[in-house]
Parts: sequence; C-alpha cells; structure tokens
Amino acid sequence: MPTFRVELFEGRTVEQKRQFVEAITKATCESLKVEPGSVDIILVDVKKEDWATGGRLWSDAG
Amino acid sequence: MPTFRVELFEGRTVEQKRQFVEAITKATCESLKVEPGSVDIILVDVKKEDWATGGRLWSDAG
Amino acid sequence: MPTFRVELFEGRTVEQKRQFVEAITKATCESLKVEPGSVDIILVDVKKEDWATGGRLWSDAG
Amino acid sequence: MPTFRVELFEGRTVEQKRQFVEAITKATCESLKVEPGSVDIILVDVKKEDWATGGRLWSDAG
Amino acid sequence: MPTFRVELFEGRTVEQKRQFVEAITKATCESLKVEPGSVDIILVDVKKEDWATGGRLWSDAG
Amino acid sequence: MPTFRVELFEGRTVEQKRQFVEAITKATCESLKVEPGSVDIILVDVKKEDWATGGRLWSDAG
Repeated sequence: MPTFRVELFEGRTVEQKRQFVEAITKATCESLKVEPGSVDIILVDVKKEDWATGGRLWSDAG
Repeated sequence: MPTFRVELFEGRTVEQKRQFVEAITKATCESLKVEPGSVDIILVDVKKEDWATGGRLWSDAG
Repeated sequence: MPTFRVELFEGRTVEQKRQFVEAITKATCESLKVEPGSVDIILVDVKKEDWATGGRLWSDAG
Repeated sequence: MPTFRVELFEGRTVEQKRQFVEAITKATCESLKVEPGSVDIILVDVKKEDWATGGRLWSDAG
Repeated sequence: MPTFRVELFEGRTVEQKRQFVEAITKATCESLKVEPGSVDIILVDVKKEDWATGGRLWSDAG
Repeated sequence: MPTFRVELFEGRTVEQKRQFVEAITKATCESLKVEPGSVDIILVDVKKEDWATGGRLWSDAG
C-alpha cells in the first residue's frame, strides 16, 4: 500500500505528470514487489514563492 | 491534540465541508475521549490530474 | 478517495485505534457520500517530546 | 537536512513569506547547528474554509 | 526539487529501501528531467495497526 | 494557526528539541505577527536509512 506525496515546482503539464506517475508506479512495483493497484501517488504543485532553501525563496533565486 | 490532514478530490461545497468536519470531530471526541477544541482538521483539495492509482491519473479514468 | 493522516499523542491501544478508524470511516461515508473502501486512514503516534504548542514541548507541560 | 512543511492561513504577501523563511532558517541553524543550505521550507496556504478547529470551519468563525 | 514522502508498511530491509530509492530517483530524473541531487525521498514505515482501509485496521485483516 | 511538521535526522536530545521549538516559535511570532499559542510544531525523527538524496540513502553516505 505505498502512498506517495510528491511536492514539486508547479508548471508540469498533464502529459508530464502522466509519464511521471507511470514511471514511479513501475519502479515501485519492481523494487518492492507490490501490485500496481496498491500504489497511490498524490502530486503537490508548489509555487517558487512557497519553497525556500537556505533561507531564500526560490522565486528570489536570480 | 489530534490533527487531521485529509486529502480528497476537489469539488466539495463549503456546506459539505462543514458537515464533514462536524461529523469527524464528533466521531473523534466520542472514540478518543478528547475535547472538541483539541481537534484540528485541514482539508486538502486534490485535482484528479494530481492523483494516481495503479499508475494512472484519475483524470484519465474513463 | 479521502486519505487521512492523523497525528495524535502516542499511548492509544489497538482497540481504541480500531474504534477510532471505524467511527471516522462511518462519519466520512455519511457526510461525503463515499464508499468505505475508498477511505484510507494512517495514524501517526507522536511523543509528547515531539509536539510543541506555544513554544513549549508537551513533555514539559506541568 | 531539516525539512519544514508549514500550513498557514492564506493571505501573506511574498515579503512576509520572505521574512518568515529567513527567520525560521536562522533560528534553525542556531539551535540545531546546521548549515543554512540544509534547511528546506515549504509553505502551504490554507483557506479558512479548509481548516476546522473544534468542528467549526474558520470561515464560519464570527 | 521533487521531495517525496512515501508511507509503506514496515518490514522492508535496508537493501530493499536502497533499491527502491535508486529506482524512484532514476524514474523521476528520466520523466521530469531533473538532476538526481535534487530528488529527496523520505520513507515512513507504518505499522499495520496504524493503517486502515474501509474502516478496518490492516492488522485485523484475516 | 501556523502548524509545522519538521522532518530531521534522529538523534537530537530533548534539550535540543526544547531550544529548537522555542526559537522557531519566537521567529514565527515576530515575522508573522501571531500569538505563541497559535503555533504548533510536530517533530519527526527520521533514520538515515529512511532518507535518500540523489538516490542514495544517507546511511550509505561514506
């Protein structure tokens, strides 16, 4: 029952998300020996103004 | 201090959310013997294109 | 597909958890009109030394 | 590698977020003795209709 | 900067986790066109008594 | 009502956690103009074998 929550910068197309969840699910099934139907993935689009590394918002990165 | 984070498909009305948090809080207080004021619930609306099961986005489910 | 993550202080028995997830699932199905099988709940036991309110660890609350 | 996820009511300006992540990162580095570059912070804006305390949505608080 | 949090039933060996994070990171880099160093994965082991589907704890599943 | 979830490597003492939550709460109150009592912080200790960057578990980092 692996359940993924993935935070990533916003801006991916639906086609990119489609390929991503297919690839992640396949990789999970192969490495953990689980069935595809048991894999849930939730994508969380994050704005660059809502993510900071080293104390600086990514929207401020030059 | 139970704190809930609930991910659900977007599209609920405020009235549905209102009834949902009332029902969840009541069920929590009765089963865990806590005070209502100690129950926090955060709802997270998820688009169907951001949730996949079995490697397929729910927006692609026919 | 509501998916719950619930953080609560450690110390509940399995029987309390059993009653809690039954009550939450029932309340969810009634208020959101979903099927029980679509409700997932993950419980996260938190130590009092790992939860702070107002800048004070709950393990320090007199 | 402390990674923060902070849920807060929506409505902060980018300048407020900027000051907030700077302050949190500084406080983290001083108290945990880590390097700024190892601190990640993700902010999650929550609508008042998506947060309930005591069974009542904050959008209903008078 | 994709950041994963993956909840899965406890009981995997370190070798299984090692293969899993390698596979997930590779799949992420190929499908999202990001660098490996930007991929963080946090694994969360969940006991069967802490996960319920359909109102029943997995530790109770016969 | 800022609510923090902070994932960090296990191994901090209670005294370090105490200083950390004090510092984070103070920084939050000053930068966001909120009351201390509205700040909740949950710490999540993560084992090095449960955190990967760049496809490698931190427990494998030489």
